[in-house]
Amino acid sequence: MDILITGGAGFLGQQLLRRLLERGTVGIDGEQREFARIVCFDQVEGTTVDPRVRNVAGSISDPATVSSLVGRDTGVVVHLAAVVSGTAEADFDLGMRVNLDGTRYLLDACRAAGNQPRVLFSSSIAVFGGDLPPIVTDATTPAPQGSYGVQKLIGELLVHDFTRKGFIDGRSVRVPTVVVRPGAPNGAASGFASGIIREPLAGHEAILPVQRETEMWVVSPRAAVSMFLHALDLAPSDWGWNRSLNLPGLVVSMHDELQALRAVGGGAALRLVRDEADERVRRLVSTWAARFDTSRATALGFTPDKDFESIVRAYVEDNPKAIALK
Amino acid sequence: MDILITGGAGFLGQQLLRRLLERGTVGIDGEQREFARIVCFDQVEGTTVDPRVRNVAGSISDPATVSSLVGRDTGVVVHLAAVVSGTAEADFDLGMRVNLDGTRYLLDACRAAGNQPRVLFSSSIAVFGGDLPPIVTDATTPAPQGSYGVQKLIGELLVHDFTRKGFIDGRSVRVPTVVVRPGAPNGAASGFASGIIREPLAGHEAILPVQRETEMWVVSPRAAVSMFLHALDLAPSDWGWNRSLNLPGLVVSMHDELQALRAVGGGAALRLVRDEADERVRRLVSTWAARFDTSRATALGFTPDKDFESIVRAYVEDNPKAIALK
Repeated sequence: MDILITGGAGFLGQQLLRRLLERGTVGIDGEQREFARIVCFDQVEGTTVDPRVRNVAGSISDPATVSSLVGRDTGVVVHLAAVVSGTAEADFDLGMRVNLDGTRYLLDACRAAGNQPRVLFSSSIAVFGGDLPPIVTDATTPAPQGSYGVQKLIGELLVHDFTRKGFIDGRSVRVPTVVVRPGAPNGAASGFASGIIREPLAGHEAILPVQRETEMWVVSPRAAVSMFLHALDLAPSDWGWNRSLNLPGLVVSMHDELQALRAVGGGAALRLVRDEADERVRRLVSTWAARFDTSRATALGFTPDKDFESIVRAYVEDNPKAIALK
Repeated sequence: MDILITGGAGFLGQQLLRRLLERGTVGIDGEQREFARIVCFDQVEGTTVDPRVRNVAGSISDPATVSSLVGRDTGVVVHLAAVVSGTAEADFDLGMRVNLDGTRYLLDACRAAGNQPRVLFSSSIAVFGGDLPPIVTDATTPAPQGSYGVQKLIGELLVHDFTRKGFIDGRSVRVPTVVVRPGAPNGAASGFASGIIREPLAGHEAILPVQRETEMWVVSPRAAVSMFLHALDLAPSDWGWNRSLNLPGLVVSMHDELQALRAVGGGAALRLVRDEADERVRRLVSTWAARFDTSRATALGFTPDKDFESIVRAYVEDNPKAIALK
């Protein structure tokens, strides 16, 4: 059996790849199954060198390319490739091409392969917006207020229908804001939540554009990857017809984040964070859901991070080269 | 100002066209505005002859064709063109091409025209399914259990996002089952609800595949068209950000329908209806929502039919040639 990871060269894709390679198996319906190969697909070629990995560079919005990635041996597909929220909002056509068309091409390719591959779709809590209740539950109606959230929700609907038709065995998980994102800042509107940890730990200044009381619903890269693997492992009967799920996360305020930063990086790191209000970002973030009741996910065995300090410590462990302060 | 009606040769399109031509104006923000031309677009050429009507035949799933329909003078677009539920389920690719791609091409064309046309999208109560509450409200999460409903819901999301981005001024209305549909039976799974009225009134036998207690949420063609016009008339501020709306309808059981049939067509008509269980249809219909609380639509001034007998009498008036029994 082969595994395909789209967006495989990204930080979540690479972490997922490492986890799979370490184990050599992937859990399917509670059993560890060996795989022969992982196709790591992204815009740029992945850097993981392993005889089991085939790094492929190309565009997810090119149907012929996408079609060539999926074959009869493809048993598992993890679809992470996406244009992030800020970029999808700034460049509408790019977002539609990558997030909507790309997802559809991938699902079409899975259908054409004819062996009903297990497909994990990385959706987002950005599907929620509008008149939100104080606590978002599994029954809350998604009403995205950005093109990214709209495109992710359409992806979920396609995964749902392709599953119902028997073309794939799909699962969509709505991922909280992933913190701490390693690497350079990207186009995600939520980027500051990672920036105020990552940049000070690297010895750089960071700007906090929202108030310190601002709360967000977050997950670490490690926990996100563990939950991706769990989502794949669950049997179709565990999911039933509803293939979209709000993943568990942690509610953290920016104040909580800064406390964890001080605990891990000390006062010197903390002093690198500068409060500088950005009304556009404040307004946007105020429309995001921060508190969730994820009973269904908990019942299905998904587990969130323990606390925010553990998230920061895991980031330091996973990204030793990005740490400049003690 | 010009008006475009897609699916304009269908029975709802033709009824809408007649209403617009009779009046010569269309309500916009509470004011009657004159129009110069109505483009009636459909697979087949429309038969309405009027100097103000341009009948155009073509495929909604051809982007160049669709693009040619919308220009700077297009102030109002009514998007009715669709493959119906049974057909979209039986021919997945056709449904995707017409209901999803066609809608997207139309919205892209409206965006390219650059004058933010007012767009009415005819969605459906088929967006609801799954674990439904006894009464569907404006807060119920759509969870379509058929490809038709999925495609309509994706269309709503696109209308929502194109509106939010300022490309169009869109409105999506979720239409109840339209009864009595004139003409030949089509691929709609709900077709029997019209068939048991239309066929006996034409002197033909009709089959009732579900139990007489089965309830449905219905609207007459006349009321549907009135509500389309009202949806266009309302100002953007009446809608706010939520551009999807459950339209009011009537709850009728098949028993209610047969009583109205007898009242209008007599015992001879009633005797032409034969109960013949079809488990597939029964199962499907049992997943449909029949009872709605449409408070938001009522507050916005949408009004349903008075009762089912009026619906049957209106059908007889509007379709004199289709009536064989007195």
